[in-house]
Amino acid sequence: MMKNPWKTLSSKEIYKNQWLRLREDQVITPSGHNGIYGVVEAKPAIAIVPLSENQDTYLVGQYRYTLDEYSWEVPEGGALDGEHTLSGAKRELKEETGLTARTWTYLGELYTSNSFTNERGYVYLAEDIFDGVSNPDSTEQLRIKKIPFLQAWQLVLEGSIKDALSIVSILRAYEYLKKSQKLNN
Amino acid sequence: MMKNPWKTLSSKEIYKNQWLRLREDQVITPSGHNGIYGVVEAKPAIAIVPLSENQDTYLVGQYRYTLDEYSWEVPEGGALDGEHTLSGAKRELKEETGLTARTWTYLGELYTSNSFTNERGYVYLAEDIFDGVSNPDSTEQLRIKKIPFLQAWQLVLEGSIKDALSIVSILRAYEYLKKSQKLNN
Repeated sequence: MMKNPWKTLSSKEIYKNQWLRLREDQVITPSGHNGIYGVVEAKPAIAIVPLSENQDTYLVGQYRYTLDEYSWEVPEGGALDGEHTLSGAKRELKEETGLTARTWTYLGELYTSNSFTNERGYVYLAEDIFDGVSNPDSTEQLRIKKIPFLQAWQLVLEGSIKDALSIVSILRAYEYLKKSQKLNN
Repeated sequence: MMKNPWKTLSSKEIYKNQWLRLREDQVITPSGHNGIYGVVEAKPAIAIVPLSENQDTYLVGQYRYTLDEYSWEVPEGGALDGEHTLSGAKRELKEETGLTARTWTYLGELYTSNSFTNERGYVYLAEDIFDGVSNPDSTEQLRIKKIPFLQAWQLVLEGSIKDALSIVSILRAYEYLKKSQKLNN
């Protein structure tokens, strides 16, 4: 669409932990000025909308340390190093909810906060699902809620679900199901 | 809804620039283990959906350094220190597009990427708009596109707009206009 108008002169790692890496680049801005750019590198964020035969979905509730807020979201997690996002989606769905699914549909990517991070979100719809045993991360304390998918869509519309990745995921699942004429009303 | 199950033992600033601050906290996780949490503190992100009398909107195109991608988005920007998000919305809309608006409607908040940042997005609909002179940030090289609002909604549905804050903003504007029976078809 357009050539990158930024120039990177140098790049320095500031911080790294298991989940993110912060680097500071010396740059020339599109308008030709010298500047810095702090970029938070994050692993792919994967979101899954599970859908049962009678069109229930599963939400995950957890306390978000970053925001000091409780948040209801779709099952989400980060890809492991070198892991394909579909494999990550299967793993995260199983870990958080115990569910496995036979039918997976990719609903596209998104940028979570592109002014400072390279994090991309990847959205999957999981159908033909089966119950199993969940095995959440030891850092997480999750609650799982099974509700009609259309009720989750209402929670998005009324603003009760505030996590951007969850909002986009439920929107895309809704539009996909509507288009495929699979949505029960 | 639930007490914060995380405990913060100490907090250390790792990095700070004009746009973000990174801190690393020593924590006790919800499951009782010692750990660290790297939190990226960011200013409120403000998004504006401008709507003309005949229901055109304005998209802003720019090259996103973080992702190495060109991205079409709604007008967006960060709040200044101490600035109310509505004042920020008026300022950013004017800076990026030259537009001013007489009618402002707040369409709620969202969390852009709550596993590692406290960034919140704030969405505004701007109606009764007037053209003026734009004055973009010197770091930005923006293109402005005026298109029918319903076409922007289609760009969201087909996945061409990938910025999460823009997707959520256009979705909320669409639902608000539909509910208020203001949407021309």
